[in-house]
Amino acid sequence: MAPGPTEIPPQVLSAGGEPILHHRTPEFRAIFADVCEKIKYAFQTTQPVLTLAAGGTGGMEATIVNLSAPDEKIIVISGGVFGERWAKIAEALERKVVRITVEYGKAVKPEEVRKALSENPDAVLLCGTLSETSTGALHPIEEIAAITKATNTLFALDAISGLVACKLKMDEWGVDAVVSGTQKGLMMPPGLALIALSERALTAMKTKKSPKFYWSFESALKKLTEDKLPDTPWTPNVSLVRQLQVSLQLIHAEGIENIWARHELLAHATREAMKALGLTLFAETPSVSVTSVHSPAGINSGDIVKKMRSEWGISIVGGQGTMEGKIFRIGHLGYCDRTDVLMTIAALECVLSGLNVPITLGAGTKAAQEIFLNSK
Amino acid sequence: MAPGPTEIPPQVLSAGGEPILHHRTPEFRAIFADVCEKIKYAFQTTQPVLTLAAGGTGGMEATIVNLSAPDEKIIVISGGVFGERWAKIAEALERKVVRITVEYGKAVKPEEVRKALSENPDAVLLCGTLSETSTGALHPIEEIAAITKATNTLFALDAISGLVACKLKMDEWGVDAVVSGTQKGLMMPPGLALIALSERALTAMKTKKSPKFYWSFESALKKLTEDKLPDTPWTPNVSLVRQLQVSLQLIHAEGIENIWARHELLAHATREAMKALGLTLFAETPSVSVTSVHSPAGINSGDIVKKMRSEWGISIVGGQGTMEGKIFRIGHLGYCDRTDVLMTIAALECVLSGLNVPITLGAGTKAAQEIFLNSK
Repeated sequence: MAPGPTEIPPQVLSAGGEPILHHRTPEFRAIFADVCEKIKYAFQTTQPVLTLAAGGTGGMEATIVNLSAPDEKIIVISGGVFGERWAKIAEALERKVVRITVEYGKAVKPEEVRKALSENPDAVLLCGTLSETSTGALHPIEEIAAITKATNTLFALDAISGLVACKLKMDEWGVDAVVSGTQKGLMMPPGLALIALSERALTAMKTKKSPKFYWSFESALKKLTEDKLPDTPWTPNVSLVRQLQVSLQLIHAEGIENIWARHELLAHATREAMKALGLTLFAETPSVSVTSVHSPAGINSGDIVKKMRSEWGISIVGGQGTMEGKIFRIGHLGYCDRTDVLMTIAALECVLSGLNVPITLGAGTKAAQEIFLNSK
Repeated sequence: MAPGPTEIPPQVLSAGGEPILHHRTPEFRAIFADVCEKIKYAFQTTQPVLTLAAGGTGGMEATIVNLSAPDEKIIVISGGVFGERWAKIAEALERKVVRITVEYGKAVKPEEVRKALSENPDAVLLCGTLSETSTGALHPIEEIAAITKATNTLFALDAISGLVACKLKMDEWGVDAVVSGTQKGLMMPPGLALIALSERALTAMKTKKSPKFYWSFESALKKLTEDKLPDTPWTPNVSLVRQLQVSLQLIHAEGIENIWARHELLAHATREAMKALGLTLFAETPSVSVTSVHSPAGINSGDIVKKMRSEWGISIVGGQGTMEGKIFRIGHLGYCDRTDVLMTIAALECVLSGLNVPITLGAGTKAAQEIFLNSK
C-alpha cells in the first residue's frame, strides 16, 4: 500500500522467474515487439514508446538531455519532491530553470502556466508532474497541455506514478513527452523507464546539440524502427521486458477506462474513510494513485508508518523533505483492489487507537464500505 | 552459450519471482547491505561498490561522467566493439579521446600503454577492457594497472563480461574503477551496473566539474554510507538486487579462485575442440569468458549461429561490426559447466557437418573430453 514499488500480480512475478532469453534471439525480439506495441495503449498514444534500462529518474534525465540543450531555458512546475526533481536534473545539466513554485499539496493553476509560458517564450520545455507522489496532488494536465500546445514550448510530463492509474490521454490532450517507470501502475518491479514522444518532440530532438550516449533517443528510435522487429541499442532488461508483456496483457484485459475508474473508486473510499476518522487530507486536488493525510495532532507520522509495518505488515509511507513526520501517504495504485483498501483502513484504525488518537474503531471502514456498496 | 545474457541458476531465477519489497523497508535494506558487502569479493576489493539501475553501458558512461570533465583527455584502448564503446561515450560527452588502436583479436601490448601514457601525461583517464567480448581477446590488465599506477592517470576497466570469470584482483593490481553488469559472470538478468572505485578515484571524482544527476557517484556514495544501512538515491532495481544476493551466495560458496579455474578449464577445452576440428581461433590471447573462432572457408558464421539455434536450441553468437559473418563466438561464462561445453561442441559438429564442412564427427568432443579427464 505504498505509492510504489507496488504489489505485483502473481502472473507477473512468476514471469520474472522464467529462464532468460538472449536479447538478440527472434524469441525475445517477438516479445519486445509485442511490448512496444501494447505499451502504447497505456500511454493512450499511437507514437513510439522508448524503453530504457534505468529507473524513472533516468527517464526524466534522458528527456531533458534529448529535448533541450545546455543553456536553454526550461520551465518547471515545482510543487513537491518530484516536480522539483525536474528542476534539479535540469540545473545539474546546465539548463536555465524557471520555476513555477506551487505550495505543497496544491495543484498548479493553469493561469500560472499560461503566465510563465508567455513571460518565457524562449523556454524550450515545460516540465510537469501528473501525480505528485510526495504530496498526493494531481495536476490539471489536460488544461496545461492545451495551453502549451499553442506555444513553441514542448510539454514533458512525469507520469511515473500516474500512468495506468490517473486518467491520461497523451495524443488527445497533446502532451509531447510522457515519462514513466514500471514499479507503479504497470504493476512491475522497478528498473525500466518508458518514454513516449509526440511528433513535435521527435522533430525537436533532432536539432538539440546536447552531449549524450546512453540516453540517446535517436539511437533508441533507430533500433526500435530500422528492422522488422524492434531492438535496443544496449542490452535491454530482458526479464523486466518479459514481465511487462504479462502486465500489459492484464491491463489490456481489464481496459484502461476500467482501471482509471477502479483507482478513482479506491481513492474516493480512502479519502472518505480518513475524513470519517476526523483526519484532514493534505492534497487539495488529490491524485487517485495516493492519498496523503495530515498526521493527527501530536503524532509523528513516522510512528504510524512504523506500526503499520511492524504490527500489521502493511507498507504505507510518511512524508518526504519538509513534510517528514507531518503527513502519511497510502498508495492504492496498480495491483490493488477494494479488499486491500478495507484491510488498510481497518489496520490503520487499530494503529491510531494504539497511539491514543481519539477515533472510533470502524468509522473509517464504514465510510469506505458505503462508498463501495454505492458504487454499482 | 552466448557471452551474455548468460544462463541463470534456478535459485537466482526463482528469487526473481519473489514478492517485491518496498525499497525503504528495513527488510530490503538488509538485503541491500548484504549485497553491498558480498559484492566486494567479486571485485576483489575492500572499496565501496556502487549499484546503478542501468545496463553496463550506463555504468561506463557514469564512470566517464564522474572521473573526467568535458574537454579533458581520455586514453582508450580500442581493440573491439566494447573498447571502442569507451571512445564513443567519451567523444559523445565532449572529452578529448586518444586511441590506442589494437588490431581486432589481439591484446594491447603493455609498451603501447606506457608510450601513450608518457606522451599524454595530461590524460585523466585510461579506459580499457578486461575481456573484449566482440573479439574474445583478454587484455593484460595486471601489467596495465602497474604501469598506470605510477602516473597521474586513473585506470578505468570495463569488466562487464570479465568479472567473476577472468582473474581480476582490483585492489592488489591497482585498478581505479571497475565497471560490471549483472548478465555475465554474475549469472543474473541484465539491468544492474556495478562500479567499484579506488581511493584515488574517490578523491579525483570530487574535483570533476562535469554535469551529472542520475549518474552521480557522489549521490550514490552518500546514500551508501550515510546511514547504518546502505541506501540508493533513486529507486533501486529491487528484484535484481534480491537476485544478486542469491547469486553472490553461490559465488561465495564456490570460491572465486575455483570459479576462475572452472572458466579456464571450459575455455581450454573449447579451444582444443575447435583446433581438433581444424578450425582457427580468432583471438591471439583468448579470454576465458568467450571463445571466438574463424568461420570455415566459404561459410557465413551467421548460418552456423542460426542452425545452432534452430536445430539444437543453443544460443551462440556471430561477429559484430567488421567481423560480422566472419567469426562465431561461444560463451562459457557464468552458470556453465563441462556438460554444457560438451553438448555445444557435439551439436556444433553436427551443424558444421550439415553445412558440408569437412570435419570428423566427434573429433572436437574427444579433444574436450581429454582435457576434462586430465584436469583432476
